[in-house]
Formats: sequence, structure tokens, C-alpha cells
Amino acid sequence: MTQNAKLRRKGRNTHNIESLTQISIDLFMNRGYDATSVEEIAKAAGITKSAIYYHVANKEELLRRAISNAVGKLFEILEEPAATEGTPLTRLEYIFRRLVEVEFDHLKEIALLLRVRGGSQTERWALEKRREFDRHVQELIVLAQDAGEIRDDLDALAIDRLVFGMLTWIPEWYYIGHRIPPGVLVDAALALIFEGIRQPDVAR
Amino acid sequence: MTQNAKLRRKGRNTHNIESLTQISIDLFMNRGYDATSVEEIAKAAGITKSAIYYHVANKEELLRRAISNAVGKLFEILEEPAATEGTPLTRLEYIFRRLVEVEFDHLKEIALLLRVRGGSQTERWALEKRREFDRHVQELIVLAQDAGEIRDDLDALAIDRLVFGMLTWIPEWYYIGHRIPPGVLVDAALALIFEGIRQPDVAR
Repeated sequence: MTQNAKLRRKGRNTHNIESLTQISIDLFMNRGYDATSVEEIAKAAGITKSAIYYHVANKEELLRRAISNAVGKLFEILEEPAATEGTPLTRLEYIFRRLVEVEFDHLKEIALLLRVRGGSQTERWALEKRREFDRHVQELIVLAQDAGEIRDDLDALAIDRLVFGMLTWIPEWYYIGHRIPPGVLVDAALALIFEGIRQPDVAR
Repeated sequence: MTQNAKLRRKGRNTHNIESLTQISIDLFMNRGYDATSVEEIAKAAGITKSAIYYHVANKEELLRRAISNAVGKLFEILEEPAATEGTPLTRLEYIFRRLVEVEFDHLKEIALLLRVRGGSQTERWALEKRREFDRHVQELIVLAQDAGEIRDDLDALAIDRLVFGMLTWIPEWYYIGHRIPPGVLVDAALALIFEGIRQPDVAR
């Protein structure tokens, strides 16, 4: 066996599909998915390009693994008992809280999911899943308005987009280095969404 | 003059630096800045690569023009009378409202500014300007808390990041096609931030 072949074999053994997915996420986040080549992934992993193809068929498979993991975690929230039982308001509160918690537990994968633009089949699938999650929450907002639990003078779609914007932006700025304890942030987010930041006794 | 040379000359005449900047923004948004080549910009503009270099020194100059325009518009807000006079709370309300209005007026440039990651000198400059705008607002939040105008049980930095996340995400999802009338969205955003979405008489 040549020295080179030994190194390749070593590369195959020290990396698995999970570690390669993690390395790819960092590159996709820093350079963008389109701008990242399989060659760069191989270089960052310290293995050869052919060693990458030993694990995956192509670059998109690495994106799909990262993103489908994130999508799976988000949709699990909607199946949890507190997301399916109770009043629309308590279900919304629960979903928003869990959304932030899941974001912290899977920061990189979810930040990547939110950067997706729709070029490849995987990206289009991810956009469709994001919209599906969104529609679920929008329906709950309308139900909560109908039940008189949240204000009905505000447009349900606008509320949905604003709250999602706020919550889904979190992994993005955490990823680039802001540090607020997750618990502090979750509490601030829920208080802001439901009660607002104005001191209650201050005249409007 | 050959047919080709005539076409090139035509290209130079029908495009100016402003129209090339606009074309570049769309490409940067759809494919990412790193992944977009000068060749692709030329192709999208229907002119030759050398005709591009007649107008700009390099790709980064197009990014710089787009982004510095957006940064300039954002910082103008902070100089406006209602952003510098009045209580910290009224100044915050004014800045948040104007931020959304300016986003709608310069949707593409600001969406691009918010996608910037810091690879090139221009991108690092843009990140620094975003942080500067941010610090200004953070200071106002602390002042408003000290004045008893906004709740001081919430972390000022957390409020700042959440509100900015909400407001700066707007161009991103408008860019990909959501349609809510700007006025409806501004009102919903301000109501959400300051009053929250819970119906006031609903028990917590």
C-alpha cells in the first residue's frame, strides 16, 4: 500500500457522514452553499475528494442531511402534547418557547435551514417545509383571535411573519457571536411577543 | 467597426453604474456574493465583461455601492429631529417606525446589507456599521428603562436583538414574495413591540 493510499484509508476511517455533515455546515454558512465546492469540504476535513464520495453521492446530500435534521426537530414540536392540547393561546406560547429552545439545541443546522434560498431540490423542499410550519402557526393565531385570546386589531399574517422573523433570526446572530443566556432570551422573547416592552403604566 | 464592437459600445451606452448595481444586487441575493462572477453580471446585463470594467474596477465595487447606499439611508434616520429629541421611548418608537419605512423604500439594498457575512473589506465595513446602529438603539433602550418608560425586567441587549431580528428580517421575506401592505405591517410591528399581542383582559 502506498503512503497516499494509507492516508486516504485513514481519512475514511476518521470521518463519518455525521462529522462530514458538520464540517459542511460551517462551510455552507461561511461561504454560501453555491460557493462551496466538494474540494473545499475535503480540504477542511483533511481528506481527499474521493474519500468524500465514499460517504456521499454529492454536495447536495450533505446539505440534505443537515437541513432534514433541522426540519425534523422543528416539526417534532408540533406533535408534542402541549402543542396540540389546550387553548390556541397556550399552544402558541408553547410552540414559540420550544422553537427558541430547539434553535439553541441545533443552532448551526437551523441557521443553515434559514439561509436556504431555493436553488436546488433540497432547498425548495426546505422552503416548502418552512411554509408548512408557518401555516400551522398562522392558523393558531387566527384561532386565538377568534377565541378573544389575542388582539384581533392586528393582521394575523403580519403577526405571524413578525414573530417568526424575530425568532428565526436568533440562530443567525448567535452563530456570528452574540452571547445572551438562552433562558434570558426565551423569557424576553415571550414577554415581548405577548406583553410588549412598554411599562404598563406609561401613557400611550 | 465590427458588429461585435458595435454591440459592446451599445452595451456601454445603455447601462450606467446605477443599473449595473441593481442587476448585481439581484444576482448577489439569488446566488450569494461569493458565488456570483463578473461574467454572470455581464451576461445578466447583456453586455461584455470588459464593458463592466469600463464602469467599475471589480465586483466588490458593485457590492460597495449597493451596501453603502443602504447604510447611508439607515444612518440618516438617526439624524432626523424626532430621533434626537423627545423622551427615549418616543425616540425609539420613531426610529423603529422609520426603520421599517426605509426598508420598504430600499428593499433590495437593505436585504443585501443584512445578508452580508464579512468576507471582503466591504462586508466587514457593513457589519461594523450594523453594529454601530445597533449600539445606538441599545443605549436608547437602557435610557428608556432608566426613565421607567419601558420594562426593566427584560434584558436590554435581548430586547435590542429581538426587535432588530424582527424588523431586519422584513426585507428578506418581502424579497422572496410575501405581500402585506407596508402600513399594516408597520402598525402591527409597533403594536407588537410596545404592547404585545395578548388581549389585555386575558388572564396570564
